[in-house]
Amino acid sequence: MTGTPRRPDVPHPEPQHEEPSLEPRTGRAHAVFPTSTDQDVDLATARAESCARRVAASSPAARRTWLSAVAASLEEAADHLVAVADRETGLGAVRLSGELARTASQLRFYGTVAADGAYLGATIDRATESSPWLGRVHVPVGPVAVFGASNFPFAFGVLGNDTASAIAAGCPVVAKGHPAHPETSRLLAAVAIEALARAGAPDGTFGLVTGFAAGTRLVDDPAISAVAFTGSQSGGMALRDRALARPVPIAVYAEMGTVNPVVVTAAGADDLASLAAGFVGSFTLGSGQFCTKPGLLLAPAGRGIADAVAQALRDSGPSGWALTGPIAEHARAGVAAFVAAGAEVLQIATGPAEGFGVDAVLLRAEANAIVADSPLVAECFGPVAIIVEYRDDKELAGVLGRLQGALVGTIIAGGDDPDLSAVIDLLSPVVGRITVGDWPTGVAWTWAQHHGGPWPATSDARATSVGAAALDRFTRPLALQSVPEPALPPSLQDSNPWHLPRRIDGVLHLGGGDQ
Amino acid sequence: MTGTPRRPDVPHPEPQHEEPSLEPRTGRAHAVFPTSTDQDVDLATARAESCARRVAASSPAARRTWLSAVAASLEEAADHLVAVADRETGLGAVRLSGELARTASQLRFYGTVAADGAYLGATIDRATESSPWLGRVHVPVGPVAVFGASNFPFAFGVLGNDTASAIAAGCPVVAKGHPAHPETSRLLAAVAIEALARAGAPDGTFGLVTGFAAGTRLVDDPAISAVAFTGSQSGGMALRDRALARPVPIAVYAEMGTVNPVVVTAAGADDLASLAAGFVGSFTLGSGQFCTKPGLLLAPAGRGIADAVAQALRDSGPSGWALTGPIAEHARAGVAAFVAAGAEVLQIATGPAEGFGVDAVLLRAEANAIVADSPLVAECFGPVAIIVEYRDDKELAGVLGRLQGALVGTIIAGGDDPDLSAVIDLLSPVVGRITVGDWPTGVAWTWAQHHGGPWPATSDARATSVGAAALDRFTRPLALQSVPEPALPPSLQDSNPWHLPRRIDGVLHLGGGDQ
Repeated sequence: MTGTPRRPDVPHPEPQHEEPSLEPRTGRAHAVFPTSTDQDVDLATARAESCARRVAASSPAARRTWLSAVAASLEEAADHLVAVADRETGLGAVRLSGELARTASQLRFYGTVAADGAYLGATIDRATESSPWLGRVHVPVGPVAVFGASNFPFAFGVLGNDTASAIAAGCPVVAKGHPAHPETSRLLAAVAIEALARAGAPDGTFGLVTGFAAGTRLVDDPAISAVAFTGSQSGGMALRDRALARPVPIAVYAEMGTVNPVVVTAAGADDLASLAAGFVGSFTLGSGQFCTKPGLLLAPAGRGIADAVAQALRDSGPSGWALTGPIAEHARAGVAAFVAAGAEVLQIATGPAEGFGVDAVLLRAEANAIVADSPLVAECFGPVAIIVEYRDDKELAGVLGRLQGALVGTIIAGGDDPDLSAVIDLLSPVVGRITVGDWPTGVAWTWAQHHGGPWPATSDARATSVGAAALDRFTRPLALQSVPEPALPPSLQDSNPWHLPRRIDGVLHLGGGDQ
Repeated sequence: MTGTPRRPDVPHPEPQHEEPSLEPRTGRAHAVFPTSTDQDVDLATARAESCARRVAASSPAARRTWLSAVAASLEEAADHLVAVADRETGLGAVRLSGELARTASQLRFYGTVAADGAYLGATIDRATESSPWLGRVHVPVGPVAVFGASNFPFAFGVLGNDTASAIAAGCPVVAKGHPAHPETSRLLAAVAIEALARAGAPDGTFGLVTGFAAGTRLVDDPAISAVAFTGSQSGGMALRDRALARPVPIAVYAEMGTVNPVVVTAAGADDLASLAAGFVGSFTLGSGQFCTKPGLLLAPAGRGIADAVAQALRDSGPSGWALTGPIAEHARAGVAAFVAAGAEVLQIATGPAEGFGVDAVLLRAEANAIVADSPLVAECFGPVAIIVEYRDDKELAGVLGRLQGALVGTIIAGGDDPDLSAVIDLLSPVVGRITVGDWPTGVAWTWAQHHGGPWPATSDARATSVGAAALDRFTRPLALQSVPEPALPPSLQDSNPWHLPRRIDGVLHLGGGDQ
């Protein structure tokens, strides 16, 4: 949103003022974009602040209309967006077309959640002889800074889950575009700003800033009330510490990288070929650049599972590209760290020699090497996974007890598996989601979804960046005591004009449904 | 819970190993109690950890039974508890009897909230052609450390809102007793442990530790999963920083001191005598030792309000005792800081000369002295308040815009007051609760209550320590995907054995009510 691109004359321009659009398939810069100046950032936050009260006061149904308009504009611009994103990410048109459709669907979903209105938590205790009339409703926190992810330019990008759920909750958004896809980010922002204006959203409801310096300035800005982030643990923790050091600290909802374990039970190891192909497909999907990538397979010893997975990786063909040069470098360094910590490489599927090619690597480690301070319990972002063969239930429980918190744990079990409940009990304290039989890399954007988990999966284990509860990060409760009816917000008025589900005198009442 | 008291032979024993039970009315030690050793703390957390899974797996209705048993035992021990608490706090038997009754009622209330089950947020998306079966439910976080407050030995003490809501949510509690009432804390713990055992709660569901060193050791203990704190901003922030520096950071829900503003509108200034008496009664209640004490009265100029309030304070009789010597000292220092910042003392009601007597002090400041870095915007815990007379709406809005976040704001308005909605809009960003016509020091423990607010009122503006949502601090979501019915928890089973309100395929269904 800040200036026009120029053709690159140097491959690595001055990082403070420009960011290049690099092609993973070649490693070359296609274009170079100026990044936001301090004045650009201040303007974006001032616009967000100036409209925050109007966005907060809009009805949830109005915000559903705005988000639907953005979704429709996304779909109209799909061909161009996918082409640009494919050039910038190397993820391929098929995957990116699906991701764009998903992103439009997400925008509509969060609008539906807003219009349903349960997220407002409207609660009324009518006056009694001993206590006053008291109403409680969730109000928007104010402008939100969204730091989009590298790995999903659409679904977790500047118009992804965080932006959609924040606007749905009544908060203006200033997004910080990811340097892995600068042109895609700018195009998405242009689509959103045009669509929101056409749908009647206040000017300032969405804005974009770019560049590293803009990100830190954004977090420091007193107008910003909360931060949503998807990315690395180091990035998320740096933002959290910065946000807590402000004169008025604010919440940072960081969804960070984790090692997502897969447990194969004794009865789950029967169909070796399907198990092996499924695991390889999941950990190499999108060159392993999923937050939910299964990084650790815990399999019963003596069943030939390691050999079968190695064979499946051999059969899977060559690996692909990383999104950025640093991601490819970190994946290589991560494999070296695993080997230094005692893991052995079982199989490699070589990536392209040109551009940001990255090898897919399968390693094996001993159960007793999985300990709290080892590199083996830290995420390696990319198509890299470790197999550990456990000898008995006790060894399995020991390994699971030494893992860090994770977004998701997977169980591959048999039908009527007697071990299933015990493994669920072992995984429950460690993860935010447990899947049985499903590989973890699919994340449905539905009412019941939870995409978060115990630290370090997320900075706040109560928070999710996907699913209906994603809105909850961007509201806070406000209680109104003995406020006369004419001064109450619609959510607490006697006539319930928004048809909200509400609790009155302790009793839940259903809303009237869609408005 | 650690050892037996001895008669004091020195008024200020070695702080690391003992804490005295001091009488505010005399300043003398009645008894001295040994504080927890490191081993005591480790034993308490180990017991909590060892029962955490059983407490988590108990039904909400079972936990209601446990909490009701504690409430009944409290009521049975009321006479002795009130006598001891009165000696240790100087708050008087009438106030303390009422507070004990309230505490029993709170314990029952949180049990009711648990049994209702809406706090579990049970949500089910059934499988479709394109997405898997997904269930989501809130699970207890594990053992909680509760740091009780000085000012409410019962209602916010070791069996107060935090402990009751944590156990209701399925978490064992290790409470840290406040040194202002060591004997009361130990008696309360004994009552709870006996009642919980009799009601069938697992051993370790509640434990007590005492002493400063025990508090820090508790926060550092890997078995502790969350911290609830009520007290000063410095204490709350120190605990938060310590909890964030752990290898696995945990959440600290700190409810801290704030300046709770009262706005008198032009039409609200008609009944001067009632206004003045109400304000004096509220800011001197319990020697001003309320989190919700109204510390700043914003009144229209030229209506004689300052004089009327000064008169009401003159008429109110002598002031009382602070809970501790340091609180009395801090109140005196706070008044001096206000004067140094330009405020003038309008009226003093002298406190007792003996013991921890504290003066009630009314000051006046100019509107333009209320600025962000001034001591005038910081809490002075005790019977101290400032009056600012504003000349017009613009000056009022300016002052409100420069205040820190607060627990509660109060509006004294006229009938059909044309200014009411505008003042609500000005207060909404600043506070967690707005009362119209009611003084802020009453906090109902009902479904709609919110006792929290923007920083520094609470470390997390989404959290409340009073009301049904108090449980939410102690759970986190867990999603279960494609888990077969026999391995699901009761909350997500088809037959809904706990009769929970649930959302299924996006549609809310009411629960069957009480179990």
